[in-house]
Amino acid sequence: MAVIYPVVLCGGSGTRLWPRSRKDAPKPFLPLVDEDTLFEATLRRCADPQRFGPSVVVTGVGHRTHVEAQAASFPGTRVIVEPMARNTAAAIALAAHRVPADAVMLVCPSDHHIADTEAFRDAAVTAAKLADEGWLVAFGITATSPETGYGYIRRGTPLAGGFEVERFVEKPDLQTAMSFLADGSYSWNGGIFAFRAGTFLEELARHRPELAKAVSEAVAGGHEDGALFHPDAGAFATIEPESVDYAVMENTARAAVVPVSMGWSDIGNWHALRDARVGDAEGNRTRGDVELVDCRNVLAETDGPRISVIGLEDVAIVVDGNEVLVTTMAGAQKVGKLAGAANQ
Amino acid sequence: MAVIYPVVLCGGSGTRLWPRSRKDAPKPFLPLVDEDTLFEATLRRCADPQRFGPSVVVTGVGHRTHVEAQAASFPGTRVIVEPMARNTAAAIALAAHRVPADAVMLVCPSDHHIADTEAFRDAAVTAAKLADEGWLVAFGITATSPETGYGYIRRGTPLAGGFEVERFVEKPDLQTAMSFLADGSYSWNGGIFAFRAGTFLEELARHRPELAKAVSEAVAGGHEDGALFHPDAGAFATIEPESVDYAVMENTARAAVVPVSMGWSDIGNWHALRDARVGDAEGNRTRGDVELVDCRNVLAETDGPRISVIGLEDVAIVVDGNEVLVTTMAGAQKVGKLAGAANQ
Repeated sequence: MAVIYPVVLCGGSGTRLWPRSRKDAPKPFLPLVDEDTLFEATLRRCADPQRFGPSVVVTGVGHRTHVEAQAASFPGTRVIVEPMARNTAAAIALAAHRVPADAVMLVCPSDHHIADTEAFRDAAVTAAKLADEGWLVAFGITATSPETGYGYIRRGTPLAGGFEVERFVEKPDLQTAMSFLADGSYSWNGGIFAFRAGTFLEELARHRPELAKAVSEAVAGGHEDGALFHPDAGAFATIEPESVDYAVMENTARAAVVPVSMGWSDIGNWHALRDARVGDAEGNRTRGDVELVDCRNVLAETDGPRISVIGLEDVAIVVDGNEVLVTTMAGAQKVGKLAGAANQ
Repeated sequence: MAVIYPVVLCGGSGTRLWPRSRKDAPKPFLPLVDEDTLFEATLRRCADPQRFGPSVVVTGVGHRTHVEAQAASFPGTRVIVEPMARNTAAAIALAAHRVPADAVMLVCPSDHHIADTEAFRDAAVTAAKLADEGWLVAFGITATSPETGYGYIRRGTPLAGGFEVERFVEKPDLQTAMSFLADGSYSWNGGIFAFRAGTFLEELARHRPELAKAVSEAVAGGHEDGALFHPDAGAFATIEPESVDYAVMENTARAAVVPVSMGWSDIGNWHALRDARVGDAEGNRTRGDVELVDCRNVLAETDGPRISVIGLEDVAIVVDGNEVLVTTMAGAQKVGKLAGAANQ
């Protein structure tokens, strides 16, 4: 079967893991769950020459130095440096131009956590087989709670190892999310996709001809610099930013979904990060100089000062530089709106 | 009536307000409740020439520089420097030797908070009148909760402005404390006493003759140095440390109690300190660079780094130097046992 080309999307930064994640130390490049950064873990997950070719990273000028530093341990990695952010449809299209047209691309966000690498790799192979038959395949992550922060995918007619997509659903309200969970035929859309490069570009040209044309021009006018590729900024700037979901996946007649249960988390906030880390017998997760007394399910981490905690449960305490964050797990989604996070 | 000599006992430090209170920055000398330190507030409370003479402070060598610095704004204050700590019976006896025998001493701890100064002063005058008649008077602080950390005083036969003491009670268990509260004839023993110096020394000599003799010798062998008095260390070292409650108040036949409701707190831990401070509409108390979101009854204070808090209730968060403390109000009594507090 065709070689799978991992395409790692490495843009954005997010503010909900502030104060650890900051403008100049963005989420993908931090060792949040274990010793690897999320970006390194994404590359390592695909570093299996039996199944994967070298990765193509699509990133922005702001992240370039982080990417180059952390990708150095993964020989053969190529990097496309976007002159400005134009969302995922354009980013994936850039990568599609830089691999063989009949190659299968496996598009992966760079800031998610996947606990079960083998399940991921098996699903990648299954998805690649469907992609090789002309399908545009989304990973359908087993929904384990009624999340309102994710898109959902409803399964339709069965295929080998997967299903046709019946429909993509926007972030639902809680009641809808609960009905999806009860229904059992919905998965989370984790933004992981597999398709042939040529198939993707054909579908993009069909549904977003202007976007497809602008990307082609940006690639044609671009230049290589060692492992880096720089698209033409003038052409790229004209692109209307759109997600791959809106531009292609929701419009194509050939969308498929491969269900997968692989311990996935988008590490979207301190609550999710707490859950992704392995806890001690009391469910506590600590890093750095921390003393906990009568605590349960507390995440406490510090880059210097000692943290001493008594009697707390389900709270995150983060000390980073000149910032101290204390939040309940329920409040974790509001971290991005704190003055410290918003005014970086 | 006789002039009242305030005798301010300024020893010990305590660890339960760590990390703000530290070995080298002890509790009495910190501006914990308002802009005055607890020690300054104690002196200011008695700085009323209509009712009080200049204060006599009894302190230890370790606290001397703090005392001298903060007492400088209160002219006439004299300081007795104990060569080593020998508990309150000896400390009060030292002061009793340094005022006229017929003067009334008003013994005050230096690390408590009293919200209602007028109520304190009125009670002091009432107590002084009874002291002038030969009573050894304890302030009986109106009990407002079933505290297990305080001693209690049971009222007996009424006197003018007070009562004979029926008995002193050690720190009770919770059930006993609740019965005291329901009974209504028990007050908290806050360690504030009034008696004539001569009466006190007579009672001390009656019940603890060796202690009384050693103090007399320490005073006879001592020396003055400006506003300071240094007892003889050799004589003072021989003293068996004992509290004034054990040595005198529980033994004398002439113990009286003056009930008083004056917004008293021993500021014994972060819970008590939270309650002593004035809160905002949500009951929060902050100092320094603090942002609170969805918080209630939170105390948050920092000497530098910003604290950002989401969703917490009844929690204290204290940042001081290289230490970050986070404790529930219920857990506040365990602060002294934290490694940071215990191993200073």
